[in-house]
Amino acid sequence: MGLSRRDLITRLAALGGYSATLGMLGQNALASTFQPLQLATNGGNGKTVVIVGAGISGLVSAYELRKAGFNVKVLEARERVGGRVWTLRNGDSIEHNDGSRQTVEFDTGLFFNAGAARLPSHHLTILGYCRELGVELQVLVNSSRNALAQPDLNRPPLLLRQAVNDTRGHFSELLARSVSRNSLDQDLSAPQRKALLDFLKVYGDLDPQQQYRGSVRSGYTRFAGAGDQTPIQRQPLPLEQLLDSNLLLPLVFDEIPEFSSTMFQPVGGMDQIPKAFYRQVKDSVQLGAEVLSVQTGEQGSRVVWRDRKNGRQHVETADYAIVTLPLPLLARLDTNFSADFRKAIGLAEGDKANKVAWQSPRFWETDFQIYGGLSYINHEARTLWYPSDRLNSEQGVLVATYNTGEVAQQFAGKGLQAQIASSRQAVESLHPGHSHKLRRPLAVNWSKIPFSESPWIVHDEVAQPGYDILNQPQGRTWLASDALAHGGVGIWQNSAAESARRVVGLIAHHASQTSHGVAA
Amino acid sequence: MGLSRRDLITRLAALGGYSATLGMLGQNALASTFQPLQLATNGGNGKTVVIVGAGISGLVSAYELRKAGFNVKVLEARERVGGRVWTLRNGDSIEHNDGSRQTVEFDTGLFFNAGAARLPSHHLTILGYCRELGVELQVLVNSSRNALAQPDLNRPPLLLRQAVNDTRGHFSELLARSVSRNSLDQDLSAPQRKALLDFLKVYGDLDPQQQYRGSVRSGYTRFAGAGDQTPIQRQPLPLEQLLDSNLLLPLVFDEIPEFSSTMFQPVGGMDQIPKAFYRQVKDSVQLGAEVLSVQTGEQGSRVVWRDRKNGRQHVETADYAIVTLPLPLLARLDTNFSADFRKAIGLAEGDKANKVAWQSPRFWETDFQIYGGLSYINHEARTLWYPSDRLNSEQGVLVATYNTGEVAQQFAGKGLQAQIASSRQAVESLHPGHSHKLRRPLAVNWSKIPFSESPWIVHDEVAQPGYDILNQPQGRTWLASDALAHGGVGIWQNSAAESARRVVGLIAHHASQTSHGVAA
Repeated sequence: MGLSRRDLITRLAALGGYSATLGMLGQNALASTFQPLQLATNGGNGKTVVIVGAGISGLVSAYELRKAGFNVKVLEARERVGGRVWTLRNGDSIEHNDGSRQTVEFDTGLFFNAGAARLPSHHLTILGYCRELGVELQVLVNSSRNALAQPDLNRPPLLLRQAVNDTRGHFSELLARSVSRNSLDQDLSAPQRKALLDFLKVYGDLDPQQQYRGSVRSGYTRFAGAGDQTPIQRQPLPLEQLLDSNLLLPLVFDEIPEFSSTMFQPVGGMDQIPKAFYRQVKDSVQLGAEVLSVQTGEQGSRVVWRDRKNGRQHVETADYAIVTLPLPLLARLDTNFSADFRKAIGLAEGDKANKVAWQSPRFWETDFQIYGGLSYINHEARTLWYPSDRLNSEQGVLVATYNTGEVAQQFAGKGLQAQIASSRQAVESLHPGHSHKLRRPLAVNWSKIPFSESPWIVHDEVAQPGYDILNQPQGRTWLASDALAHGGVGIWQNSAAESARRVVGLIAHHASQTSHGVAA
Repeated sequence: MGLSRRDLITRLAALGGYSATLGMLGQNALASTFQPLQLATNGGNGKTVVIVGAGISGLVSAYELRKAGFNVKVLEARERVGGRVWTLRNGDSIEHNDGSRQTVEFDTGLFFNAGAARLPSHHLTILGYCRELGVELQVLVNSSRNALAQPDLNRPPLLLRQAVNDTRGHFSELLARSVSRNSLDQDLSAPQRKALLDFLKVYGDLDPQQQYRGSVRSGYTRFAGAGDQTPIQRQPLPLEQLLDSNLLLPLVFDEIPEFSSTMFQPVGGMDQIPKAFYRQVKDSVQLGAEVLSVQTGEQGSRVVWRDRKNGRQHVETADYAIVTLPLPLLARLDTNFSADFRKAIGLAEGDKANKVAWQSPRFWETDFQIYGGLSYINHEARTLWYPSDRLNSEQGVLVATYNTGEVAQQFAGKGLQAQIASSRQAVESLHPGHSHKLRRPLAVNWSKIPFSESPWIVHDEVAQPGYDILNQPQGRTWLASDALAHGGVGIWQNSAAESARRVVGLIAHHASQTSHGVAA
């Protein structure tokens, strides 16, 4: 999903260090493809697997295990599959665990991806499943140069294109000046210095005197048109205004591989992915089944669950179990895991995140030429996220708060009306005179969503040594989730799928080595 | 459409100069909206207008004039509307004026925008018409960080994300070093120098010693995955390799407002735009009507045209005429324009451009994670342009040559088979081992397309003083085209539409001041 500004900068600094540990690696373009799991189709031979949770990990596990000949049962507490892949449409409701309930009143066809909302283009596994299962994708615009940044609420917002290109222009001018002052003579040969100066002239759009005096790349104050309507470009912003740490996130965010072009979303909502898996495994899935206990042994696993409709308890025994519950919820479950294992689970801490979404006429498109992408504001709402679907149509869903971490914790402490008012305030600050058009607000506080209670764990994946411990089985029970696979930067369906595929491979291997039947 | 590398750099340098002429302008975000032409619906009062050409200028003119109560006749030499907005599908044919003929054999649903292929998000007029006429848009991905640049054919291609971010990293390191060596003390105060150093650390992803040692932003050599599959980031490219003038275009192209995110294309092909206008004005359009002569006077205009089906000549007289022919073709027409006017027409020189397109399985997506965007190669093919529609599906149309200017002139001098072989060679160089998958090639040489003979005039719009002269009427005849409106950077449907709207406004004004009937 996303990163707080602080997390991002911390992480980027940390990542800077680890190139030192690499050997020399090939620098060619990375040629990689989605590889279907290569399991014998009868490898499962009817052995049974109970899977706790029908999010992406659970669904991928069920899908692959069935293909390999296992007999699968998925227990899902909610009345829907997908977990944190959750798309809201007209008539759906949001129930927070404080008893509040909101009903979605969007026009038909509009949707709000309350959880997962982005697919990067190098996520081979989840994109491969989209191909395999026929999930139609469209571009998720994660970056629009017409979007805005407002690092200082007392000044008007900046166009991102201006922040990006004026920064580059000023830095190019300063670097060219340093070269001309012979400051880098000890580092660069004379031909290199000449090449650098020539390069900077175009790179930074410098004038013949190597000064940055603005660039058409920073946008126009008057667009080109017919007759005498020549385009007029923006005056450059002064360097002092740009050297603002609040501008760093907008300047680097869309260069991170997980957030850079090209990104995707399924046409019609992110839940098209879990729904596509569900169509394949539907008769293996028990909805409304809240798991109360997981007992694992050397011969199999035993899961007690409660039917939330009638309160009846059931016992499911199987040769294997895969548990995909969020780790902080698993910590509260009755299990017979080892002390080390339980301790590792207990160390996983849930993060916070909120989104506030509105239906609105698309003033950001008609009046600001912002089609998709994010605006950044130094306000607790943090982010405005513009819709990428049905561009240039009449109505759309604006996500006008997306915050994480500490700010999100404070934000979720407010009442819903206060959250909504805050979101509207951020829109008014970035788009003065337009916030009155916002209607039908919805606030999702992930800390209050039953059976999730968190958007992700604090560090995306479990930190070592817990990562290794929790990636080992307990008896015949494995854990799988996004938190138990590496994800690069961010939290991803791809990681959940890869964690599931790894566990499926291990179970298939185990099953091929043993012929024991069901235990318990 | 596009710019040659040389044109772009020349233009950018030229644009750098004109900020000096600006006064202080507001720096706020530009709030602009599409404004419908405000003409009285009966202002035309049945007066007649003959329009030569059913490209965007002609269609917009017809659409707006009809709304204003004029009686309109459009003469179009081709059997289709749209002019250089031309989408090719299975069964269509490309006839060059050297007698060659190619037939499109793509799978159903695939298309090739042989001419116009991009809509920028600040093109309010054409986007406004798309809303008004119900043309559904999708994102045109003009920049993928997974696309490639090959400035040196003897070395492997570079990932654009690596070129972009390693350049930024190295420049940040050099600038930080200059600051630390007090090279910029006379320009920046001590607090500014401190702020700059802090900023550069994140901006350029520098290590604590202010050195650039690579960045996750430059991509991975191993993607993150489950188990022990930690991500491995790329080693940085050396600065010397990046200081290559052939890398400047890929580094600046997608920062130009006309080429930056978010861009669009109509779902199903660019010709959905002219087709939408055509639905509105169909009964005013005469296809297959080749204009032979335009005579203008103070009372009206007289156009002689030939029915290309049967060779019969016809005369059309009207109160007004709008001529939208490409200026180099207009120069050859029999007209009674003044000597100055004809001279200005004669100075407009047609540019060159070619595209070669192939049907292929989408190896660029499955094997290279390139979804849309452009790759750049120092080869006469110049550009690979990946499709943005139906992403993640099986087959697609790859435009594997897009060249302009001098290179395009030489390229069009070859036979079609040599052009196609050259295109395949460029694909093999950027995507080794994959070019054998390319099938069903098509080459479009705009210099050889009848009734166009050029993709655009050399400087996008007619240079002064011709611009002013050609924007004045000759008697009752006006010219309209993309070449007669300002377009910012590039050649655009938006400019054609704005030129048309201006002329329609002038004709409506003229009509409101006079009550004369049809002349001739």
